[in-house]
Parts: sequence; C-alpha cells; structure tokens
Amino acid sequence: MTTHDNTQQKSVSDVSEQAGTASSTQGGYPTPAWRKAYHQGPRPDLRVPYREVLLSTGGTVPLYDTSGPYTDPAFEPDVRRGLPPLRDAWISQRGDVEDYHGREPRPEDDGLKHTSPRGVVLGSGLDNLDAVFPGRPRRPRRGRDGAAVTQLAYAKRGIVTPEMEFVALRESMSAETVREEIAAGRAVLPANVNHPESEPMIIGSKFLVKINANIGNSAVTSSIEEEVEKMSWATRWGADTVMDLSTGRNIHTTREWILRNSPVPIGTVPLYQALEKVDGRAEELSWDVYRDTVIEQCEQGVDYMTVHAGVLLRYVPLTARRKTGIVSRGGSIMAAWCLAHHEENFLYTHFDELCEILRAYDVTYSLGDGLRPGSIADANDEAQFAELQTLGELGRIARSHDVQVMIEGPGHVPMHKIKENMDLQKEICDEAPFYTLGPLTTDVAPGYDHITSGIGAAMIAWWGTAMLCYVTPKEHLGLPNRDDVKTGVITYKIAAHAADVAKGHPSAQAWDDALSDARFEFRWEDQFNLALDPETARDFHDETLPAAPAKTAHFCSMCGPKFCSMKISRTVMDLYADADGVNGDDATVVAGMKSKSEEFAASGHKVYLPVVD
Amino acid sequence: MTTHDNTQQKSVSDVSEQAGTASSTQGGYPTPAWRKAYHQGPRPDLRVPYREVLLSTGGTVPLYDTSGPYTDPAFEPDVRRGLPPLRDAWISQRGDVEDYHGREPRPEDDGLKHTSPRGVVLGSGLDNLDAVFPGRPRRPRRGRDGAAVTQLAYAKRGIVTPEMEFVALRESMSAETVREEIAAGRAVLPANVNHPESEPMIIGSKFLVKINANIGNSAVTSSIEEEVEKMSWATRWGADTVMDLSTGRNIHTTREWILRNSPVPIGTVPLYQALEKVDGRAEELSWDVYRDTVIEQCEQGVDYMTVHAGVLLRYVPLTARRKTGIVSRGGSIMAAWCLAHHEENFLYTHFDELCEILRAYDVTYSLGDGLRPGSIADANDEAQFAELQTLGELGRIARSHDVQVMIEGPGHVPMHKIKENMDLQKEICDEAPFYTLGPLTTDVAPGYDHITSGIGAAMIAWWGTAMLCYVTPKEHLGLPNRDDVKTGVITYKIAAHAADVAKGHPSAQAWDDALSDARFEFRWEDQFNLALDPETARDFHDETLPAAPAKTAHFCSMCGPKFCSMKISRTVMDLYADADGVNGDDATVVAGMKSKSEEFAASGHKVYLPVVD
Repeated sequence: MTTHDNTQQKSVSDVSEQAGTASSTQGGYPTPAWRKAYHQGPRPDLRVPYREVLLSTGGTVPLYDTSGPYTDPAFEPDVRRGLPPLRDAWISQRGDVEDYHGREPRPEDDGLKHTSPRGVVLGSGLDNLDAVFPGRPRRPRRGRDGAAVTQLAYAKRGIVTPEMEFVALRESMSAETVREEIAAGRAVLPANVNHPESEPMIIGSKFLVKINANIGNSAVTSSIEEEVEKMSWATRWGADTVMDLSTGRNIHTTREWILRNSPVPIGTVPLYQALEKVDGRAEELSWDVYRDTVIEQCEQGVDYMTVHAGVLLRYVPLTARRKTGIVSRGGSIMAAWCLAHHEENFLYTHFDELCEILRAYDVTYSLGDGLRPGSIADANDEAQFAELQTLGELGRIARSHDVQVMIEGPGHVPMHKIKENMDLQKEICDEAPFYTLGPLTTDVAPGYDHITSGIGAAMIAWWGTAMLCYVTPKEHLGLPNRDDVKTGVITYKIAAHAADVAKGHPSAQAWDDALSDARFEFRWEDQFNLALDPETARDFHDETLPAAPAKTAHFCSMCGPKFCSMKISRTVMDLYADADGVNGDDATVVAGMKSKSEEFAASGHKVYLPVVD
Repeated sequence: MTTHDNTQQKSVSDVSEQAGTASSTQGGYPTPAWRKAYHQGPRPDLRVPYREVLLSTGGTVPLYDTSGPYTDPAFEPDVRRGLPPLRDAWISQRGDVEDYHGREPRPEDDGLKHTSPRGVVLGSGLDNLDAVFPGRPRRPRRGRDGAAVTQLAYAKRGIVTPEMEFVALRESMSAETVREEIAAGRAVLPANVNHPESEPMIIGSKFLVKINANIGNSAVTSSIEEEVEKMSWATRWGADTVMDLSTGRNIHTTREWILRNSPVPIGTVPLYQALEKVDGRAEELSWDVYRDTVIEQCEQGVDYMTVHAGVLLRYVPLTARRKTGIVSRGGSIMAAWCLAHHEENFLYTHFDELCEILRAYDVTYSLGDGLRPGSIADANDEAQFAELQTLGELGRIARSHDVQVMIEGPGHVPMHKIKENMDLQKEICDEAPFYTLGPLTTDVAPGYDHITSGIGAAMIAWWGTAMLCYVTPKEHLGLPNRDDVKTGVITYKIAAHAADVAKGHPSAQAWDDALSDARFEFRWEDQFNLALDPETARDFHDETLPAAPAKTAHFCSMCGPKFCSMKISRTVMDLYADADGVNGDDATVVAGMKSKSEEFAASGHKVYLPVVD
C-alpha cells in the first residue's frame, strides 16, 4: 500500500491502482446487486438516498446509505468540481444567512512558512485554491447579524427544516420526533451552512447508531488525493461522518478538497491546525490564533469541531499518577499550554465567544475528552470524570447559545467499567449525544484494536452511545491505508448495527432476517449481496468452492454435500407446515409426530441430497 | 492458500511453505523475545510450561502458554513419533487403570468401504496405523472393572491429583480451589487416560476463560497433515483445546495423528463419525454404531465429546416455525433420526450407559446444544430453552456417575438477549461450565463473523462462560485456512482476555499494564513482544515507519515527531513527581501549579523533541 511511500505527488488514479480496486470517487457499488434509490420527500429537491439490495427472488431490501452521489450512475464525478450543493436552496430560502468577503487564505493555513508567496501553496502540487475549485465562489455564508442559523435554534422554535425532513425519511421516524430530539439537545444534525454538499444525518441515541472514520495526513506520510480517496472510500463502506485530522502540511487545501467532495459531515480538531500555525509550540498558542483557525474552518464548511475546553488547569495534576498520562493529542496540547502559562485553558475562558462564532455557521461542538484514559488501568479515574463534569457544564452553555453539542468519550475501558461511563455521561451531560472512541476493552492486542475496541463500541452503543469513532487495525502502530480504513469501517458498522438490533430500532433486525432467510434457503448470491461486505463474503466462499454451480448448491463447504442441517430443518418445517403438532399438548404432539414419521418414511427419507462424493 | 486445492496428498512441509511461515510443529515462537519457561511443581515430573516475554528493561512478563513442547528448543519434534506422554506416570501410579486389547481399527473407521482390505487405509497416503506410530502400543487403558478414573471422582474423594496441581500452578490458584471447583461440577479438567500427551488445563468460570479452535477436514477439501498442522498452529496462538470435526474420509487416522501430537485436550462429535459409518443415512444410526464409535474414540484418547442428547423428540416440532430451523449438524442428525423412527433420541435413552463408558476413560461430556439458534431471530426461543432444561437434567445424571460435564451454548444471539442465556444456564445447569459458540450478535456480516461473534463472546465470558468456541472469518462461507485459524484464535484470545480483566482475574490486568507501560515509554520492541501477535504488530508499525531507528523513536506515525502527547504526559509526571499538587486542596494545587509552571519555563519548555521534519 501507499504508506510505504512518502511521496506527496500522487494522482487519484495512482492511488486507486495501488489499492487494487476502482477509485471510490469514480466507480459504483462493489456489486451490481446494489442499486442507488431515493425516497421522494415533501419537496421536489428533497430526495433521500438509500441502497436497494436486489434479491434473486425479485424482492428488494432497503438499506441506509452514506456513499453519496458517487454510487448514482447518473452522477459524473469530478473531484476538482466537487459534489452538487444539495442544501443550497434550503439554506438560502430560510433567509437568515448572508454571504460576505471571508478571511483570505494564507500560506500558513497550509503549514507553509510565512515568507512563502501568498496564495501559492508550495509543495501541494496545486497552484492555488481558486484553480482547484474554479466554480466555487470564495464568499462564505454566515448567520445575518450573528443570528443562530443552527438546527437547534430552528428546532427550539418549532421549525421542521428540510434537513430534519431528510433525516426523518432516512431513519423512518417522524419529522416531529427528529425536531423534538434536536430541540431537547438529545440529538444533533451537523450541517454547516458552508457545507451544502452534505446529506443530512442525525446523531442521537433514539436513532441508528452512527460511526465516524478518521482520516488525515500527518508529518510522516500520505498525500492530499489519498485523503480525499480515503474519505469517499470510508463513506462507500458506511462511515456516517469523517474527521479530517491532518497535522502536516496542506491542511487547508486537503480540507477544502475533502469538504467539496464529501457527502457526509466533516469534523476536525481546529487545535491541530492552530498548533501548526505556531510551528508546533503549544505555549505560543493563543485565543487569537485559535479563533482565526476556527473562523477559517467555519468558512470552509466544517460541520463539527472537537474542542478540548474541559482540560482545566486544576485537572492536569490529576493525570500525574496515571499509567499512560494524557493520550489525547488535543488534551496534551492544552495541558502543555496550561503548564506553560499557568493560566486556565483559553478554550474554557473564551467558550462563550466560541459559541457565538459556531452558531453563525451551525457548527456542532464535539466536546473533546482530552483526559480520556489511554490504558485500561487509567479508566474511570478522577481526571476523566472531573473533565466530564466540565463537559456537562459547557454543553449547557453551548445549548443556551443555540449551538448543537455532542460529548466525546473514551478510550480504553475494560468491559466492567463501560456502563458507568454511559450512565454518568447521560446524567452529567443531560443526555447530549455521546460520541466514543471504542472503547478498547484490553491493551494487549496492538494490530487488532479494531476488535478490542469493536467489543466495547458495541456494548456502549447498546447502552446509549449515539456515534462511535472507529479504530483501525493500525491504531497505536501507524497510519491506516485503504484496507485498514475499510476494516475499521466494517468492524464499526457491525458494532453499530449489533447495537441497533439490541436497542430494538424498528428497522434494524429486518436486515438480519433478510440475510438469514437467504442463508436458510441457500440463496448464496443474496447472502453475499446482503452482507456488509459482499466482496469479502463472495471471495471467502469461492476459496473453498470456486465453481459457479457452488453458488446455487444446496449445501456448503462446512458439511459438504452428503449431509446438510439446513436441508433437515427444511424437512422439519415442511412436515409441520400445518403446525398441528407445534402448539399442541404432549399427546397431540406425539400423535402428530407419529403421522409425520410415517409421512417422512413414505417420502423415501428425502432429507438428503444425492450423495455426490 | 491450500483451500483452493482439493488434493489430499500434501506433506507437512508443503503446507507450511504454502502458508508462507515455518511449520508450527517445527519452528519456535514467532519472536525470539518469547522464551519457553517452566514452573517446577511439587514432583520432579511436574513442570508447568509458560511463556516468558523478555523485555528490553531486563524484566520479564510470564504469560499462559498453550503451545506445548514445540516451542521448547530442547524438544525435537517428529509428527510421526508424537509428543512425549507427559501424564503416563501420573495415570499409572494411581493404580486404577488397566490396559487391554482394544477394539480393532476397521476400514470404515476411516470412512472406507467395508470391502477394503482390513488395516490398509486407502487414499490417505499412509500404509496403516501401526506404521504411523510404530512406538505406540495399540493397547488402550481404561478404569479397572469400570472404575471411574475421572478427575471428578478423585476431587469428590478429596484427592488432589498431579493434574490438579498442574492447573493450580498454571492458573496461580491453590490446588485445593481447583479440587473444590471440580468436585462441585463448576469446573472440568478434560484428560482422557489415553491422551497422556496433553498438558492439564481447567475450564470453569473461576479460572481464566478458555478458547477452543475447531479444525477438521470435510468431504469437500483438506488433508490429514493439514489438520495436524492447523492443530499445532492454533495452539501456537493460544487455543486451549481443539475440536476435530472431521467429516470426510480418514477420520480415524486424522484423529490419531492429532491426538498423538496435541498438547491440548481434543474434543470431537462422535456422531459425525458414526454417521459416516452408515454412509450418511441418519435413519440408519443406532445406539450400537454410536457406542462402537464412542469406544473407538475413548481408546484413542479424545478428551471431551459433544453429545446431542438433549434433542428430544418432542422438541423437534418447536423448531418448525423458526427462521433458520436447526443449524447444529449434530442436532439436525438427531432430529432426522427421531423423525425417521418416531422414537426418543437414542443418546437420551442410553445416557446412563454412555456415562458408564466415559467414566472409565475420563472423557468429559460437552452436552451439545443441538437446537441452538442459527439466526438472531431464533435466539432464546422455546426450542432452545427446552433443550437447556434437558441438558441440566443430563448434567446431574452425568455427575452422579462421576463424569465431568460442560454445557454447550449458542450461537446467534443479539446483545440484549445474551445475559439471559448465561443466567438461565447457571440456574438450570448447576453452574456447570458453559461453553458457547460466540454468540454472533448480528447476522449481516458474513466474512467478519469472528468479529460479530467476538463481541458476544467477550460479553458472555464476562458474565460467566468458561470456554469460548472460536469462529473464523470463513464461518458460513467455507473452511478456514491457516490465516483464518490464526485470526479466529487471536480474536477469541482478545474476547477471553477482555473477560478475564472484566471479571477481575488476579493475574489478568498485569499483562495490559506491562504493555501500556511499554507503550508509554516508547519501548516499541517490548510493545510488539507483549502483543498477542507480535508479527502483525511489528509489520503494521513498519509499514509506516520501516527504518530501524523508528523502533527506538520517541514518537509514532500518528502524530509524527513534531508533537507527541506521550511526551507531554511524561513532562506532567516529572513535574508532579513529588506529588505536592496531586492530592492537595485547590489552593495547594494552584500554588503547586505556579511553581511548576516556572520550573517548566526554566527547563526551556522541554516537552517537545527537536523538530526534524
């Protein structure tokens, strides 16, 4: 994969060739049995996409879909043009935004020296931003006169926005339920007015559990095009949001590419870019640098931002006796700043001002857990829960400014300590959506932390976490490549869906049932196509039984053709189709069995297929 | 991998070459930092193996080890000679067994036509069994005059056997606790007197959670040598027991090879072989054929047997309205037999007789859940729990015969229905060890069922399941190859260890702590070597930062060299090493912070490494 190579100059086609699969911004679905379909909403420009799985029986199964226009054959993708601005009309028709001459991009936005010629993004392979997206005017939008243009503000006023209608259709819920949950702060709909390309989605414990995929270059490796490709690749497999955690050069440009091409909300940690602007010296950070960076990102269209405002000066010493100290990058940056200045965290002291900024763009807070545990030994300690108290306080302040809020959670937590996290978060944070990283349930399996964390993620989502931040197999070891991103996404889709089923989400189990029906009826192709990952399911089957007839065979490689438990079950079902023995008392059952036994014998004991080996 | 090829004639070396790794019956550990070590027990011939992880600090970390003599450099493996009979003296010194002229192996034991020349195992590439293990006398052992030579019988009489001493040392428990748990039926120590090669291990909820790996050829693919190789490969990565589920030809010979080379207990489902003897016609099965097969396997040394005695005639109709009917192969065989004969399950009606056989060899029951759900839709239904009641009844009968018993459990169960399984099993089955297959928490991810089930496995083990039967990525799709076996084992080691930690097993978290210490101190090699899978951890790290110096670098590829949260945490710890601010009141803390801030500034803000990019 490409991570062996530090070269920054790769075209999109290079990247996809290396990954051995068609580029996800170019190709369609991984199987022709998936078809893009739309639910028509209450207005002509409100069409909610979903994935239709076509079955060999002629039936279809509708599944939630995050892949955006790329999987619509009618769409002609061009990463340099970006996606159509789906929400443009909805935003402008509300009449509460203005466009304005925004902040001028500066070389340092891309981590370049201040002496570089302005507007020329050296080392990125691009001339300048205008050349990248020539059709996109650089005039950003914001709430007129600082008005709150947030979904929360509308929801509180009783307004059902097109965005709410969209997610209601997407989740098979009523629009009023969507509005109520947002108004109560129990759900968020991240939708920056400057990211009209995104398809509305909702994060809240009453809705389907969502997953986030992190991407982002770093000082060590990866290229811009690679990150865009990873974004669309992640959404192809089911990522509901993507966080761009880039830390090296070209942060601004990378983000612009990602936003203009992303059908899902994009999250960031503005602190990372702010730190780049002060050449990595945490003590030189200031509210001004941070504020400038936040506005830069608000204007670009970032939908939610992780803000480590809960890392208070007095909490830092609480981490001194930990096994693994502070492992959150943002948390450690703010701790370093607090240490250097002996002042309270500037994100905390300027929190009201930050709210005033975010509300004008509808950027959602993701209040970062900078003091989350980095080992199971540190789970649920004083530092972690002290910060959680502060996050609860900040959440109330944010909502009072009509800013949407979710709360980030751990991290590394052994199974028996997970529920306490969820219960406390609900209580302290007024049921604001919880957004957790795993948690990892053991520290002993680097290389498999998608699994150590997938276990914790499924459990905490069942108990109420609204969004799960994925963990890839490379966690703790390196940067994820395309395969790792896919593995991380699929693992977290499993955790999220297992939780949806356990929570009794009305539409969740129908998917399992459709697949189990296909399995029981030996509809192999339907089984593959209903799988989270049809390619892998099909490949694994073909490793053992590659021949085409095996795909219609009424047996599988586990038992072979001679004896098949599914076939016997089918016989049992046929025998009891009239159910006279099923619910009767014992005498009826025995009588039923007797006649069925004779019937069975008369049929020539046809529970088996012809022996072919 | 080899599964593309149906050829039955492969040598061990062929197999290992194809897998791209040294044969696990030949090579040592996957890293030179793992060293085989022994705890010396109370008698000279009682040495309990463990794995010692050598750290760069000079320290060591002891880990439970299942890999057997293969990883001892002093041992010269020869699959045709088998392992040394570790327990021979212990068994004979008890003075309660006799050897006798056992049942003669017959061609049909290997699934060959009755007309084949006796003793010549056609198609297996072997001349006959005597030639395979020339040094192994064919005289099996059994309890003299039918005496119960079971660990349960000894435990009930207050005897602490060498086997119990062995597991006590292995689990860091007292031998008396081991004896008590076995005597109470809450734990089993599967140890057939004819499998002296096995290293004693214990299965019970008070002990470390164990995992089982299934191997076995089938009518469709795989060879004998491949199965032996899979067995030692599985134990190399941590399988505590191995079930040989072979269903095709050469069942007897394959099992002989596996038993003579296995350092872990071997389980089987005798019904599979019995079915082969009647050419796959379930209705032709009889107690006689089954009994003959059980004795054949008892004499060979099988340590535990899955017996589907709970599939009662009256339960079969309860499955008729299920989504996926009966998915247990054994369960469906017995259901077919019941249907064909309209008689009660012969395993149930002959259960006392079966107990008398098993007690004479110390074969442990694994009472099979033939009616387990095969989809989450069928979980916790009447059929499943009706059978569980019968398994509880049979368990009591078995223990009254001094036969050890564990109870098998599901299967496919959504998260919110898992705990009910565990609670009911404890209540109904008198806390006999529960041995579950996963459970899978969703049906929608074929190709990833190690993960869908790893989630359920971790949860049910936390709640009390004593042994987890692994699920590989090929579940529902095909036969696992070496990579799949490893992935299944590692995934289940994660689930088991996460449960050990959550249950508060005294030795469990020390492993996590050692790895987290290494991680925090940037001891990369120690981090790899403490990992469940050092090879994968090292490979993943090297993909991003391949250069040798990166292994000693005080940063990682996620954040790059410029800024590192671990370094900042280290600074916090150093600053508060004297802890004067850590536990003080707010005033003390603030004062402490102030002086520390000055100290920090005076040090030149040395929280960062030199910027190298």
